[in-house]
Amino acid sequence: MALIVQKYGGTSVADIDRIKAVAMRAVETAKQGNKVIVVVSAMSGETDKLTAFAHDITGRPDEREMDMLLSSGERVTSSLMAMAIMELGYGSISLTGRQVGIITDSSHTKAMIESIGSDRLKEALDENKIPVVAGFQGINELSDVTTLGRGGSDTTAVAIAAALNADICEIYTDVEGVYTADPRLVPDTRKMERISYDEMLEMASLGAKVLHERAVEFAKKYNVPLVVRSSFNNAPGTLVTKEDGDMEKSVVTGVAHNKNQARITIMGIPDRPGIAAAIFDDIAKANLNVDMIVQNISVSDNATDLSFTVSKAESEKALEITQKVSDKLNAKGVDMNKDVAKVSIVGVGMQSHFGVAAQMFDVLSKNGINIMMISTSEIKVSCVIDVGQVDAAVQALHDSFELAKQ
Amino acid sequence: MALIVQKYGGTSVADIDRIKAVAMRAVETAKQGNKVIVVVSAMSGETDKLTAFAHDITGRPDEREMDMLLSSGERVTSSLMAMAIMELGYGSISLTGRQVGIITDSSHTKAMIESIGSDRLKEALDENKIPVVAGFQGINELSDVTTLGRGGSDTTAVAIAAALNADICEIYTDVEGVYTADPRLVPDTRKMERISYDEMLEMASLGAKVLHERAVEFAKKYNVPLVVRSSFNNAPGTLVTKEDGDMEKSVVTGVAHNKNQARITIMGIPDRPGIAAAIFDDIAKANLNVDMIVQNISVSDNATDLSFTVSKAESEKALEITQKVSDKLNAKGVDMNKDVAKVSIVGVGMQSHFGVAAQMFDVLSKNGINIMMISTSEIKVSCVIDVGQVDAAVQALHDSFELAKQ
Repeated sequence: MALIVQKYGGTSVADIDRIKAVAMRAVETAKQGNKVIVVVSAMSGETDKLTAFAHDITGRPDEREMDMLLSSGERVTSSLMAMAIMELGYGSISLTGRQVGIITDSSHTKAMIESIGSDRLKEALDENKIPVVAGFQGINELSDVTTLGRGGSDTTAVAIAAALNADICEIYTDVEGVYTADPRLVPDTRKMERISYDEMLEMASLGAKVLHERAVEFAKKYNVPLVVRSSFNNAPGTLVTKEDGDMEKSVVTGVAHNKNQARITIMGIPDRPGIAAAIFDDIAKANLNVDMIVQNISVSDNATDLSFTVSKAESEKALEITQKVSDKLNAKGVDMNKDVAKVSIVGVGMQSHFGVAAQMFDVLSKNGINIMMISTSEIKVSCVIDVGQVDAAVQALHDSFELAKQ
Repeated sequence: MALIVQKYGGTSVADIDRIKAVAMRAVETAKQGNKVIVVVSAMSGETDKLTAFAHDITGRPDEREMDMLLSSGERVTSSLMAMAIMELGYGSISLTGRQVGIITDSSHTKAMIESIGSDRLKEALDENKIPVVAGFQGINELSDVTTLGRGGSDTTAVAIAAALNADICEIYTDVEGVYTADPRLVPDTRKMERISYDEMLEMASLGAKVLHERAVEFAKKYNVPLVVRSSFNNAPGTLVTKEDGDMEKSVVTGVAHNKNQARITIMGIPDRPGIAAAIFDDIAKANLNVDMIVQNISVSDNATDLSFTVSKAESEKALEITQKVSDKLNAKGVDMNKDVAKVSIVGVGMQSHFGVAAQMFDVLSKNGINIMMISTSEIKVSCVIDVGQVDAAVQALHDSFELAKQ
């Protein structure tokens, strides 16, 4: 008998028929002799609808209030799902983040889980019920509702799987698994059978939207095996697990891209120590996530240019802060470009192979694609390019590294 | 400086424009030097939408899950309202039933408030904020979400006003106050300036939907002055307060009616002590509210008929239970009639006037209206009649007791 955590995303619970279908899947899993915990997202469209309400009221909604607002979506799904499971003759109970004991810090709209209880979940499982947890939410020490950010329900599921030492955490979505590149861009893309946490982490952070980055980090830390699969069919999905001898040894595992990027450049900063600290301190205090950072030393005029990328959603706020910092530093000015995107190659095999980055630059160059920024890690190479050239870049890299072949 | 609790119903917060208008009213009240607490219902239509979802899943939704589901509606309004108030430059914070410390019993879908905290509300008021409380909800001792039943937001508002010793509790709705009869039925109906708790209690329980019965009971018990008024204009509304010398001394204050009724009759019950107890014990255990009860003694065959009314929504469940009780008691059978309604006259003056009931029966008779059941209290007389004759009955009674005149 295994303990299985099943997380169902927004499209998997988009309407009452989908909720009934998912309830049936959970009950089937339980009837096969497993203990099952279900974690649900808001019905697709709900979060966007509520966000639009808030923006009709104010340009800058208070973040505590946004959490109160958005957390209602998952509560609705969890109670409807519990009813659907009961209607199939199986015991069930909906539980909010608070009721599960998910305690977070107070970073509203992007809170981090600090601890998680297991009493009510264990009690429900002991009573042969399928508990249905409202994903994406917890409470802070003031007992205020917090949310874990977009994709936070993945994190809820993995955190629960870790806390209860589950055998597996299944992430159900509307795609069949993790692909070597976005199937909408690359026709001959291939679904991976397995991928390591580290590779998945890079893929997730690079914009492969199938799994949330923080969920993968959590899974890696607590060694929770993840399966990404579709709730619309019975295809086996992709296993995300720790690297082992069986892991595919291809140099490059996949091509990821992210069009939701903006590049901000501070030009002509007087070159002295502490510049970067001055800039990114203020940005961090505003709770903005900076992705790539590139600094170019300019020998001629003893000044430097510094560029970084943020998500489009946070770009205006970041620009405002950067403008102030630029004035403080007596820099020449600030430039923002929202027509950029990031394309990346990922693979654990890269660590033991030379020339992978060079091959990437070569492919892009031969396709007439200009590289604006470069950033590398042990298992990935990312380039910021013009957003209009992303599709061509992904296809060319997929071909060049022969990802369609097993 | 007064402490004012303002409760806004579903139509008053039906969309974003309405929410902004209500926020402005709350801020205006605060700027006039008052402390203001806002209590909100779900946006109109939301509760019905969620209820329809549940009924698409199951014929008999679990009540704990219904509470989890429906309580989300008020949370949405409370956070949006807090944002709208902040957008006007005033401090605000949304608070759930739990965060306000509303502890209830465990009668899901119709829970009773057992205690109520004031720490977070006082803290918010001390910080010059307008707290916005999600109405209709609390938690029980298991920390599960409960709801107070339809109209429960009125109860939340009055309970908070009582706990904080507020100067007044304003109930904002889409009508301008309490009328001598339903304006949709009686063209020359008149808005009352004042009405006593007891009269309002009878009006509310008799189907005048403007205020929830339990809220009025609560207000009476803790002597909280209520004002019923419209959020769509600045008309003064109706004050609901304790009876005093200034109170209008008319014999009959208003005519109420309730079309949401069903009559159940058990026929031919062997006449022996304990019959009524046997029947209503089982019905009470099922948490059903019985309204009128009439038992007719039949001398001829040593058997009795017993009739009672319940709301249409609970009638099928009540019928099922009554059928079982009927079998157990060897009664002749059970009959249900859903085409009935109740029409009532209310007034504190009745206590010192004879012939009021007789005048009512006479008016109905002269209008060809057959009376099926009669029930009286010190300040009201109710008759169950055919639902098709309600409109005529209300108009005739309004005329006969000259309610259009001040």
